[in-house]
Amino acid sequence: MRSPREDALEIARKAIDAVLPENALRRALEGRLFPGKVVLVAIGKAAWRMAKAAADVLGDRILRGVVITKYVHSQGPIGNFEIYEAGHPIPDENTVIATEAALQATAGLSRDDVVLFLVSGGGSALFEKPKGGVSLKSIIDITDQLLRSGANIVEINAIRKRLSAVKGGQFAQNLHPAKVYAVVLSDVLGDRLDSIASGPAYPDSTTSEEALRIVQKYGLKLDTELLKLLEEETPKSLSNVETVVIGSVKVMCEEAAKAASELGYNTEILTTTLDCEAREAGLFLAAIAREEKGYDRPLSHPCALILGGETVVHVRGQGLGGRNQELALSAAMGIQGLEGVAVLSVGSDGTDGPTDAAGGIVDGSTITKLKEAGYDPEEALKNNDSYHALEACGSLIKTGPTGTNVNDLTVLVCQ
Amino acid sequence: MRSPREDALEIARKAIDAVLPENALRRALEGRLFPGKVVLVAIGKAAWRMAKAAADVLGDRILRGVVITKYVHSQGPIGNFEIYEAGHPIPDENTVIATEAALQATAGLSRDDVVLFLVSGGGSALFEKPKGGVSLKSIIDITDQLLRSGANIVEINAIRKRLSAVKGGQFAQNLHPAKVYAVVLSDVLGDRLDSIASGPAYPDSTTSEEALRIVQKYGLKLDTELLKLLEEETPKSLSNVETVVIGSVKVMCEEAAKAASELGYNTEILTTTLDCEAREAGLFLAAIAREEKGYDRPLSHPCALILGGETVVHVRGQGLGGRNQELALSAAMGIQGLEGVAVLSVGSDGTDGPTDAAGGIVDGSTITKLKEAGYDPEEALKNNDSYHALEACGSLIKTGPTGTNVNDLTVLVCQ
Repeated sequence: MRSPREDALEIARKAIDAVLPENALRRALEGRLFPGKVVLVAIGKAAWRMAKAAADVLGDRILRGVVITKYVHSQGPIGNFEIYEAGHPIPDENTVIATEAALQATAGLSRDDVVLFLVSGGGSALFEKPKGGVSLKSIIDITDQLLRSGANIVEINAIRKRLSAVKGGQFAQNLHPAKVYAVVLSDVLGDRLDSIASGPAYPDSTTSEEALRIVQKYGLKLDTELLKLLEEETPKSLSNVETVVIGSVKVMCEEAAKAASELGYNTEILTTTLDCEAREAGLFLAAIAREEKGYDRPLSHPCALILGGETVVHVRGQGLGGRNQELALSAAMGIQGLEGVAVLSVGSDGTDGPTDAAGGIVDGSTITKLKEAGYDPEEALKNNDSYHALEACGSLIKTGPTGTNVNDLTVLVCQ
Repeated sequence: MRSPREDALEIARKAIDAVLPENALRRALEGRLFPGKVVLVAIGKAAWRMAKAAADVLGDRILRGVVITKYVHSQGPIGNFEIYEAGHPIPDENTVIATEAALQATAGLSRDDVVLFLVSGGGSALFEKPKGGVSLKSIIDITDQLLRSGANIVEINAIRKRLSAVKGGQFAQNLHPAKVYAVVLSDVLGDRLDSIASGPAYPDSTTSEEALRIVQKYGLKLDTELLKLLEEETPKSLSNVETVVIGSVKVMCEEAAKAASELGYNTEILTTTLDCEAREAGLFLAAIAREEKGYDRPLSHPCALILGGETVVHVRGQGLGGRNQELALSAAMGIQGLEGVAVLSVGSDGTDGPTDAAGGIVDGSTITKLKEAGYDPEEALKNNDSYHALEACGSLIKTGPTGTNVNDLTVLVCQ
C-alpha cells in the first residue's frame, strides 16, 4: 500500500475525473439509441464542454445544436452548432436572444424526436425568456428585491419560474410531443432538480400559492399584471422528459468511494451536503481520524471516509486561502503526530478561494514541517492565511481549472 | 419503535447511568478478590461518591480509607474513613495535609496488600506533596507561569510531576511491594492515563529532557534547586499497578452504542474526542442526518451515531446557553423538516454552561416550533442564547447534577 497522501490524491483524481463534462457525458450517452432527430440545447457554465463531448460521441446524429454559456466560456465552433455567450449571474439581452434561438431550433419536433438538453450550473441566468408582458428588467428587479430581502433560493425560484416562459418545466412542456433527454451536471447541494438552472425540464415543486405568499412575506412591489402571472400554475408532471444527473457532488463522492474501495479501503460516505465552517469541519474530521487510529472505528482500517459539500469561511484575517485549504490546515492540527493518516480537501473546479490552488492535503507530519518552516499554524488560521502555510510545507493541491464544478470533495484516509 | 427523541433520550440515560461513580465502581469491584489488607485512597471531584460505592461493595474488607475531594463535595462520613476537603483548581495547605494522611494510611503495606486508588477529575490539585525543598507556593507559581505562557496540559504536567513527590507514578512506586488497583473515572479526552490527576499511579510518558526543554521554550524562571529536580527521572514502568478506567467519555460512548443496538439501531461511534466549535459540530451532524434520510448512508436505517468529547463555544453574544445547547440548536437548523431524526447533546455531569440544563434535544420540527414561539433561531445562535430558544420549544434536557463528569455525549438518531 502506498502512502495515505498518495492514495487520497488518487481517490480525488478519479472522483473529479468521473465528473468532468466529457467523461460524464460519455457515460450518459453510451449505448443510447435516438430513433428520430436529435436537437441539442446546452445551457450553463459547462455548456460548451458538454456540447463538445456530445458532438464527439453522437457526431452527425445531432441535427442542430444551440449552446448558451457565460462570456469567455466558449472555446470555439462545434460543427454547425450555434454558440452564444450571455450574462451571468445577471441575465442580459444576449440571454434572451440565445434562448429564442434554442426555442426556434427545437420548434415543430415530432414524438420520435429528442431534445438533448445539457444543463449545468449558471443555467438560471443563461436560459431565460420572460413571459408575455414581462420585461427582462422586471425579472432582474424582482430578483434583486428578493435577494436583498433575504429570501432563499427556493423562494426566489418560486417567483422567477412564474415570470418566465421556459423555467419551472415550461421549456419541456412546450416541446411536447417531442421527448427531452435532460443530462444534468449539478452544482447544487442535495441535487434538487427543480432548482438547478431553475428546472426548465423538471416538474416544479413550488406552487402559485407559495409564490403569492412569498410576495406578501417580503413585501415585494409587483405590478398587477405580474401578480396575475404568479397565479398561473407551472407543470407538476412532465411525461416527455427523462432526466439523468451525470455529475454532482453526490456522483463525485460515490466515484471517490468506488476508487477507495478499489484501492482496498473500507469506505463510507459521511455526507454529500457538508456546509459548516471549513476549519471546524477539519477539526471534526481530525476527531474521527483520532478515533480510527486509537480504536479502529467507526470503520476498521484501512479506511477512507468521503465527504462532499461546500463549507464556508468567515474571513476575519488579511491572509490568502480558500475553504478547502482552511479545512486541510485545521485538520492537520488535529491529526498532528498520527501515522498513516491523510486529509485531503479540494474544489472540483480546480479553484479554492482567490488562489491558484484547488485545495490542500495534510498528514500527521504537516504541522511539524510547518513549524520548521517558521509558520505558526494557529496564527495562519486566525489570519485566514492557509495558502501560504500549506505552501510552506508542500501541502497545496494545484490542478488548474478542471472544467467541471460539482462543489468540494473531502477525503480522510486512515491506514 | 418509539419516536427518535424518546430513543435518543433513553440511549443517553443509559450511557450516563453506566458512568455514574456507583455503577461504574460496582462493575470494577464485582467478583474481585483481595487476599490481604485493602486501604482505600480516593482523590478527585467524585472521590466521595466513589469511596462510598466502594465501601458499600467491600464493607469492612477495607481496613482504612482516605478521601480527598473538593470543598463542599463531601456528603458526610463513610465508616471509619478520613475525609478531607481541599482547594481546587489551585491546591492549598489542606491538599498537602490530606495527601500526607493518605501516605501515612498506606505506609508499611506488604506485597499481599492492596491500595484501592480511586481517581477522578480534579485529582491533580487535590493530591499533592511537594518534593523535598519545594514549597507549595513555588508549584503554584510555576503552574501559573506555564498557564500564562500558553503551555499545554502535557507540558505543564511534565514540569509539575518533577516538583511533586506523588505525581508521575511516584505515589505507586513508593507503595511497592504493595499492589495498587487504580480505578479511574476520566474527564480527560483521549484517556491519557498519565494526565488524569497527573498520574500518581501511572508510568510517566514525559521525560526530564522534555521538562528542561519546556523551561527553555517558555523562559520559565526557576531556582537552581528546582532545576535540579527536573533532572530526576520519573518511573517509566510500574510492576505493582493495575489500572482500570471505569468511566470516561469512551466508556460512555460505548455504553450509548450498546443501548442503541439494544433498541434495534445500527450503531457507530464516530469519535470520542470531538473538540470543534459546538454549533459547527451541530451543522456537521445535520449534514450526516440529511445523508441518512436522503440516501440511507453512512449507516442503513434505523441508525444511531454516537459522539463524545468537549466542544467549544466562542461567546460573542449576551444570551444564556452552553455548548451542548448550541450544538443542538444549530443541528435543529440543519435537520429542519426531516422526519424521524433527532439530535441530542448533553453534559454527563448534568450541567451545560451557566444554566440549569444539561443539554438539548431537537428534531425536524424544532425550528418550526421555535418560530411559532416567536424566536429567530439564527438570532438566538448569534446571541449565544440557545437556552431560551430551546426552552421556548420544549427542547431542553434537565437532569440536575449527576455526580459524574466524563464530558459530553452527542447522539444522532435516524429512523
